[in-house]
Amino acid sequence: MTRTLLAIGIGVGDPDYVTIQAVEALNAVDVFFVFDKSETTGDLGPARRAICDRHIRGGDYRVVEVPDPPRDRAARDYRGAVRDWRDERTRVMERAIAEELADGECGGFLVWGDPALYDGTIRIIESLVERSTLDLDYQVIPGISSVSALAARHRVTLNRVAGPVLITPGRRLARGMPEEVHDVVVMLDSDLACAALRDQDITIYWGAYLGTEDEVLIAGPLDKVIDEIADTRRALRERHGWVMDSYLLRRAVTE
Amino acid sequence: MTRTLLAIGIGVGDPDYVTIQAVEALNAVDVFFVFDKSETTGDLGPARRAICDRHIRGGDYRVVEVPDPPRDRAARDYRGAVRDWRDERTRVMERAIAEELADGECGGFLVWGDPALYDGTIRIIESLVERSTLDLDYQVIPGISSVSALAARHRVTLNRVAGPVLITPGRRLARGMPEEVHDVVVMLDSDLACAALRDQDITIYWGAYLGTEDEVLIAGPLDKVIDEIADTRRALRERHGWVMDSYLLRRAVTE
Ligand SMILES: C[S@@+](CC[C@H](N)C(=O)[O-])C[C@H]1O[C@@H](n2cnc3c(N)ncnc32)[C@H](O)[C@@H]1O
Ligand SMILES: C[S@@+](CC[C@H](N)C(=O)[O-])C[C@H]1O[C@@H](n2cnc3c(N)ncnc32)[C@H](O)[C@@H]1O
Repeated sequence: MTRTLLAIGIGVGDPDYVTIQAVEALNAVDVFFVFDKSETTGDLGPARRAICDRHIRGGDYRVVEVPDPPRDRAARDYRGAVRDWRDERTRVMERAIAEELADGECGGFLVWGDPALYDGTIRIIESLVERSTLDLDYQVIPGISSVSALAARHRVTLNRVAGPVLITPGRRLARGMPEEVHDVVVMLDSDLACAALRDQDITIYWGAYLGTEDEVLIAGPLDKVIDEIADTRRALRERHGWVMDSYLLRRAVTE
Repeated sequence: MTRTLLAIGIGVGDPDYVTIQAVEALNAVDVFFVFDKSETTGDLGPARRAICDRHIRGGDYRVVEVPDPPRDRAARDYRGAVRDWRDERTRVMERAIAEELADGECGGFLVWGDPALYDGTIRIIESLVERSTLDLDYQVIPGISSVSALAARHRVTLNRVAGPVLITPGRRLARGMPEEVHDVVVMLDSDLACAALRDQDITIYWGAYLGTEDEVLIAGPLDKVIDEIADTRRALRERHGWVMDSYLLRRAVTE
């Protein structure tokens, strides 16, 4: 009999961001598999637990914590290090599934935001399904990403009329704004790379801990608000130990 | 007393893509305002109705149909034409709200997918709130976009490790793939612009009517599957009178 794996996008923060499809999926799961990475991600644990408590009827599910392999964050080859880490995660997860998921059961992975954006779950599932000798099937349940949440909370669109939008990790912004794209969403930016983009007629829509009780929103001309954002970020990092933020950069264009 | 307007993202097609937050919002609405544009969008009407029927408890809401002003689709100045059309829509919507929404009531706008992507509702609300003499407040409820649905149904991520993603309207693709971005999501493409991108080592993940009963998915090396996609698209257009499709282009990169 087939074992089914579900990668379930749970939105970013607000338990009400969960879709009806995700609620159904959560309720279909027999065993949730989670990487035990409490040290690195701060308090995502409680947020995930709140979502399960709130949306799962009954509660006869099991949770299997899988020790997260160490990751070389200092590696010079960033992508290579991410790949090695993912291979190791695939191996330990494959073992956990073989040991803990019975014939015909459904295994679930809670994915922060949308599984399609900057998350390794789909790739891990894909490669363990490929390698495994078990009969495994899998599905992906889309979720509200931080990109959608950012735009909604600021009540702006991502694109301008007929224009493109770039979604990019912060480290790419070090090269500056792209030439032909004037609307850029930045994620995974530990150093607020946009602080280097003064005097370019850019408006910034910044959001931290979107959808949670700790949400902070700041928007305005980058030149005017960037210091406030940097200060706020520092204060948040002190208070929470880590910052979870994204922003949209919108450059003025004369048409 | 304040009148509240809600732009509610309802996801693309599958009524289960609706979030819990959107369900709450749908139930808070006293009057839904819809542009009567049945001729242009085919059968989105029934899909929206199904979502209301399914998620609204009770059903003591009103629906106000506002005649959609004509749009100059042949205009040479595409953006200018869109702007004129939006101004006209703002005016007629402002009038409808003043006439139909009472003090303290909540007006709702159902937005296909995510209001942040290629949709004019936020801008219309923003400018009518600015112009109106009424005391109006508004909120945006994010939704599952066709971008998220496309990735989920193909069980792929949008980005590769640490890489950026471009979301773009089809007409921009006429210039070819961007040089520095290798993962591109294309929307609003009436002519399958990617058919011109053979021999570039691109994999395509194409989806039509995502999330609906008519969903079609085709994926593979662009050179191999593009003819099948073109044929399928033609057949779908004949059957339904219109096609609603998007795709992800992923170019091979040697690292
Ligand atoms: C590993 S990625 C995961 C993204 C997630 N899959 C999504 O759909 O948003 C983590 C990055 O997402 C962004 N992010 C996630 N949750 C966020 C939130 N609640 N507020 C602001 N940014 C958030 C931040 O840029 C963070 O660095
Ligand atoms: C006016 S835009 C609206 C986009 C919408 N706000 C969203 O979040 O997806 C319409 C375009 O979205 C894409 N689209 C919308 N719904 C879709 C679906 N169910 N399947 C495939 N593409 C879809 C198509 O590219 C279409 O041309």
